[in-house]
Amino acid sequence: MTTLARSNRVRRTWWTDAVDAAGCTAYTVYNRMMLPASFGGTDVDCAHLKRAVQVWDVACERQVVIAGHDADALMQRLTPRDLSRVRPGRCAYVPICKNDGGMLNDPVAMRVAEDEWWVSLADGELRLWIEGMAAAGGYSVRVFEAETQPLAVQGPLANELTGRVFGAAVRDLPFFGFGRYDFDGIAMIVSRTGYSKQGGFEIFVEEERLAMPLWDALFAVGADLEVRAGCPNLVERIEGGMLSYGNDMTDAETPFEVGLDKYVQRYDCIGGAALKRHVSDRRLMAVEMEGPVPVCDRRWPVMDGERRAGHVTSAADSIEFGCGVAIGMIDRDWAPGAAVTVETQDGPRPARLRENFWA
Amino acid sequence: MTTLARSNRVRRTWWTDAVDAAGCTAYTVYNRMMLPASFGGTDVDCAHLKRAVQVWDVACERQVVIAGHDADALMQRLTPRDLSRVRPGRCAYVPICKNDGGMLNDPVAMRVAEDEWWVSLADGELRLWIEGMAAAGGYSVRVFEAETQPLAVQGPLANELTGRVFGAAVRDLPFFGFGRYDFDGIAMIVSRTGYSKQGGFEIFVEEERLAMPLWDALFAVGADLEVRAGCPNLVERIEGGMLSYGNDMTDAETPFEVGLDKYVQRYDCIGGAALKRHVSDRRLMAVEMEGPVPVCDRRWPVMDGERRAGHVTSAADSIEFGCGVAIGMIDRDWAPGAAVTVETQDGPRPARLRENFWA
Repeated sequence: MTTLARSNRVRRTWWTDAVDAAGCTAYTVYNRMMLPASFGGTDVDCAHLKRAVQVWDVACERQVVIAGHDADALMQRLTPRDLSRVRPGRCAYVPICKNDGGMLNDPVAMRVAEDEWWVSLADGELRLWIEGMAAAGGYSVRVFEAETQPLAVQGPLANELTGRVFGAAVRDLPFFGFGRYDFDGIAMIVSRTGYSKQGGFEIFVEEERLAMPLWDALFAVGADLEVRAGCPNLVERIEGGMLSYGNDMTDAETPFEVGLDKYVQRYDCIGGAALKRHVSDRRLMAVEMEGPVPVCDRRWPVMDGERRAGHVTSAADSIEFGCGVAIGMIDRDWAPGAAVTVETQDGPRPARLRENFWA
Repeated sequence: MTTLARSNRVRRTWWTDAVDAAGCTAYTVYNRMMLPASFGGTDVDCAHLKRAVQVWDVACERQVVIAGHDADALMQRLTPRDLSRVRPGRCAYVPICKNDGGMLNDPVAMRVAEDEWWVSLADGELRLWIEGMAAAGGYSVRVFEAETQPLAVQGPLANELTGRVFGAAVRDLPFFGFGRYDFDGIAMIVSRTGYSKQGGFEIFVEEERLAMPLWDALFAVGADLEVRAGCPNLVERIEGGMLSYGNDMTDAETPFEVGLDKYVQRYDCIGGAALKRHVSDRRLMAVEMEGPVPVCDRRWPVMDGERRAGHVTSAADSIEFGCGVAIGMIDRDWAPGAAVTVETQDGPRPARLRENFWA
């Protein structure tokens, strides 16, 4: 356990002081910003997230704005997902690929207006890519990072809590829908999105002066809901099969290899030609391990005797499911049910490939 | 003080286990990799660096290779620095700008061959930028990240230590020169570069299997030189006026504003037109503060009474110079000698603008 050295280069968020005060014990760095990683410990945080409601500082989801006459055309050029039916007021999960089909990022894009998209970055170098494509392709757009920081409200009681602050109408938002809802006289964008399987919202705060009042309001009205500061939870997201860019996929993997086949709907995008002729002999799958598992800070070889079947990309111990839960990139020679061994830095762990994730 | 959560996404280096074992107490994340930030504490590390020799894990200086027929043309297109006299065997510090003249990165580029450059990245999104420019401009090059991790040897005894491992000839390397020197039968690239003012080398390890043998060899032959594991030192680099991309400059500042005027030698590069017409009313300068100064993890306003003169970008307490040493972006209305106040998160500190850095 080593501390994270702080500096200007690793950007604080509008809530970092509040996150510290709420008892954050570990951070990671995401898009060169501070992202809380633990409060009461991953297990305690996980159980609470599944039971109550948490407020997450996810300012590190930097928002890249594509605005102007050609915003739609550029957005469609960037992703193999067909965006023609994504109307203003809707979000879409959009894999973005390089020319060779490798995954550059897997953001959620929000169509804010006919000619404006907000791209919510996973941890990766996407902003300059979009700027470069816009310039190289002669698109009539402005590309810039918005002065916006998202705050997530996640958990089964997120509906109740968010409705208390923004009004009951926010509870009618469909999954991946968004709208503007009033907080203290300011119409804020609230979307039904978030990096957990427990449901909830993301609130896009557009002025620093509103950040702490919103945080405080959520805690003030949520005491009976047992609201706590939280963060994306490693256990919960693996149980639910939610992928993490940088962990479970990099630019060395295609959407097909990481289970995003259904989002590859057109080939007239960057990387489309490569995706069209793509053939792969591996895919991500759930891997059940005997615990306890150490911190997965490197790729663990997955072995079948002397043969290498692939590698684990993320892992954690799940109290709910009583095992180590993991995600692995596995050769197609191995099918669900296969018994394998995962070689961790603390030694081998018996494991089994699974058809589905746990939750 | 909070811990750094480890994961696959924040890449370990070939030396992370050794760095942990050597007593690293704090890390930062740099180019999405682990970079040690402290061993015995910044002050103790600083005094030792100035007296003896340290081995630094700087694998986070990712190496982007530009290779092929048009490597030279692309490299020159990327930077306003004139590279026509940089021959193979030489390194050059190359500011790289966006179209608007803002700084994208300030790498050291190594001309490995007539048609091959290695670009040693500061913390920023440069690889995709180079790939995009290569594709958009139709340059006949390959751009990729090398399987190379640099290890730095820094300090007044670096010459002695490095010579013991690579042979006395390495001591003849001129500043910013490099060559291949033998380690255990392998010819490794060694350059006379590094992020300190104490002198030394960077060694470019091209295979993981050689990483720990080299580390161990440096410690085995350096015991009498008091060799220790170390890392770029915040105090030493500010005393010497060494800038840090992400702290002291971002893409919102031009080379002129951060004191890199002398590297702007041509305007036929990306950003050249903007640089040509650039007029600015601010520049980076040394700021002497009354200590103790807190951790500079945000921009501190620099005030002259009610007027804002600029902001501090980096700061630390210097034992050698008996003051807080800082770097600030200051409006040209204020000249060296001016008395100002720096507003830190722990309260105001009397300060004075300086003509020069300390070392």
